[in-house]
Amino acid sequence: MTEEKRPLLITTGEPAGIGMDVALGLAAEGKLQDFARPIWVTADAKAMQTRAEELIAAGVLKSTPSWHTINTDINADNFDVNLVAQISQQSIEADRAFILLNIPCAAPVVCGQINIANSAMVAQQLDIAHKLAINNTVAAIVTGPLQKSALIDAGIKLLDGTMFSGHTEFFMQQSGCEKVVMMLANQAMKVALVTTHLPLKDIPAAITADNVRQTVQIVIDDMREKFGLAQPRILVCGLNPHAGEGGHLGMEEIEIINPVLNEFINMGVNISEAMPADTLFTTRHLANCDAVIAMYHDQGLPVLKSHGFGDTVNLTLGLPYIRTSVDHGTALDLAGNGGASATSLYQALNMANEMADKSLTH
Amino acid sequence: MTEEKRPLLITTGEPAGIGMDVALGLAAEGKLQDFARPIWVTADAKAMQTRAEELIAAGVLKSTPSWHTINTDINADNFDVNLVAQISQQSIEADRAFILLNIPCAAPVVCGQINIANSAMVAQQLDIAHKLAINNTVAAIVTGPLQKSALIDAGIKLLDGTMFSGHTEFFMQQSGCEKVVMMLANQAMKVALVTTHLPLKDIPAAITADNVRQTVQIVIDDMREKFGLAQPRILVCGLNPHAGEGGHLGMEEIEIINPVLNEFINMGVNISEAMPADTLFTTRHLANCDAVIAMYHDQGLPVLKSHGFGDTVNLTLGLPYIRTSVDHGTALDLAGNGGASATSLYQALNMANEMADKSLTH
Repeated sequence: MTEEKRPLLITTGEPAGIGMDVALGLAAEGKLQDFARPIWVTADAKAMQTRAEELIAAGVLKSTPSWHTINTDINADNFDVNLVAQISQQSIEADRAFILLNIPCAAPVVCGQINIANSAMVAQQLDIAHKLAINNTVAAIVTGPLQKSALIDAGIKLLDGTMFSGHTEFFMQQSGCEKVVMMLANQAMKVALVTTHLPLKDIPAAITADNVRQTVQIVIDDMREKFGLAQPRILVCGLNPHAGEGGHLGMEEIEIINPVLNEFINMGVNISEAMPADTLFTTRHLANCDAVIAMYHDQGLPVLKSHGFGDTVNLTLGLPYIRTSVDHGTALDLAGNGGASATSLYQALNMANEMADKSLTH
Repeated sequence: MTEEKRPLLITTGEPAGIGMDVALGLAAEGKLQDFARPIWVTADAKAMQTRAEELIAAGVLKSTPSWHTINTDINADNFDVNLVAQISQQSIEADRAFILLNIPCAAPVVCGQINIANSAMVAQQLDIAHKLAINNTVAAIVTGPLQKSALIDAGIKLLDGTMFSGHTEFFMQQSGCEKVVMMLANQAMKVALVTTHLPLKDIPAAITADNVRQTVQIVIDDMREKFGLAQPRILVCGLNPHAGEGGHLGMEEIEIINPVLNEFINMGVNISEAMPADTLFTTRHLANCDAVIAMYHDQGLPVLKSHGFGDTVNLTLGLPYIRTSVDHGTALDLAGNGGASATSLYQALNMANEMADKSLTH
């Protein structure tokens, strides 16, 4: 008998958005069974039941998917992992689509209407997700969308006392991580970014040796530990067009980027020097590459998304656990009426599952 | 009887490079006949003959393609257009692959070895090409590769007395154009750039209202005049990631780009406001778009080239004539030995031909 694989945990996020809808959609189609792992879902049990009924009324679901609710007083401090694991096993035997970790909302959920009384419940989902991942109870976290502004309006703070600013910052602080790397991935390619959401004018100052070095190290480490690649092959874009063309179009490649990359090359890492982005992203280079590192958002993501917009998954590298994310927002106008597509959640689960299978701790 | 279509003119450029090789390659395969137009080629007649023999010896060509050499004392001042037109017609009747406009080299041509004694001949090709295009003798110029450094080392100057700096600047000054726009095109998309070969740090300062406005106007004018599109549909990228996200990730969209785009929108032009580059370059947007305007090189060209590297053609918009270009360099190591691919020249001819057919003056 093979060892039971650890679960994938979905946080449905903002209850007024489409997080529950897409989880229910996959459950109803039997697609949560594709991963040969228990699926755990954080949500308010009552809201989930109501949402299922709304989707049935909308003609999207034929019947309510079968799930098992863990109704203990869940919170991050007294969560009974053993109990959940036991029920998880029972649920698989009983052919339930998923385990619902019930995290009650403070106020009734209305589709499409943000209520900041429920923002604490959203943050609690992340808190529990972190706890279950850091202690290896779940194999990966797959996050649904939340409404950042709602958590801010509700005064939700991060561990360091600053205002809530997103899933990634939340998990970083809970894990004590100083640096993580955003990676987007689809069937065509995987692209990690040295800088993410910066105005263009602020990018050059953010391309420091430390930033490039830390990004590269995290990509290497995670390609080894979370993708099971002993010797990942990495290609790196320059900052400037034509990778600076020997200094004629910018000096950052010569002064900052290539010296750092050569440190890794000299250590035996299979990584390129800075390459022109407009030749790097072509078949002959991508065919021999496990991951691309781009210097900034619009250098790497337009090309990646052009080769599979609906299939794109957002990963956070550098955390002590696997975290993937849907690549869409709360889509408040689509909640409860069947307008939401579950493709992105499926891809995020699929990527998390593949990584969990390949990672050093299954 | 339909009117004879005007010729396409190929400048083979640097004689030590692959410019002649790729023209001979297409001629030998009969592909120069695909365009139903006379093909004129600027080169040194003796060097062309030698190159053909070298390619036969290398086993690449089976026999020397048939061409007709115009051996009058060609230069930009006394070029006898009527004579050439007459011979052009005779050559088509005699089934010749092309007309060779013989521009003699000062020194013998050796494959792969730049000789600055021949740089004046390279510049003379451009001079003649401009003359023939500006007086409507040829329908389009298709430029092969030159070695910019060789022309600079030879002291070749532009019309304004500054040092030679490229095909585009040459044609701009000859035509009295103050602004042109670089566009790259393949089967997947057409992308025009507001800025081209600038270090990343210098881009924001170059995104001025004037620059954006002039670029948009040239793209609109040329899509109408050279592509025959009465009402071209144009999508425009923002400068910043997520097109600035309402000012959170940069102000240039709000302060500079969108005000200019709204001038055009208010005039009835089918053009977008600034869009996030990572959603613009997806099928649902590109399917309803004739041309994309990107703010800078690595925002637009990696995605374009990833969808057809070998097929990509470089166009110069804003000149008073059609000019396309191969998208490769002189490839000195491939000259004379059959290593060069003629795909890019074919695509550049094909694009020039399509544009010539659709343009207001065929």
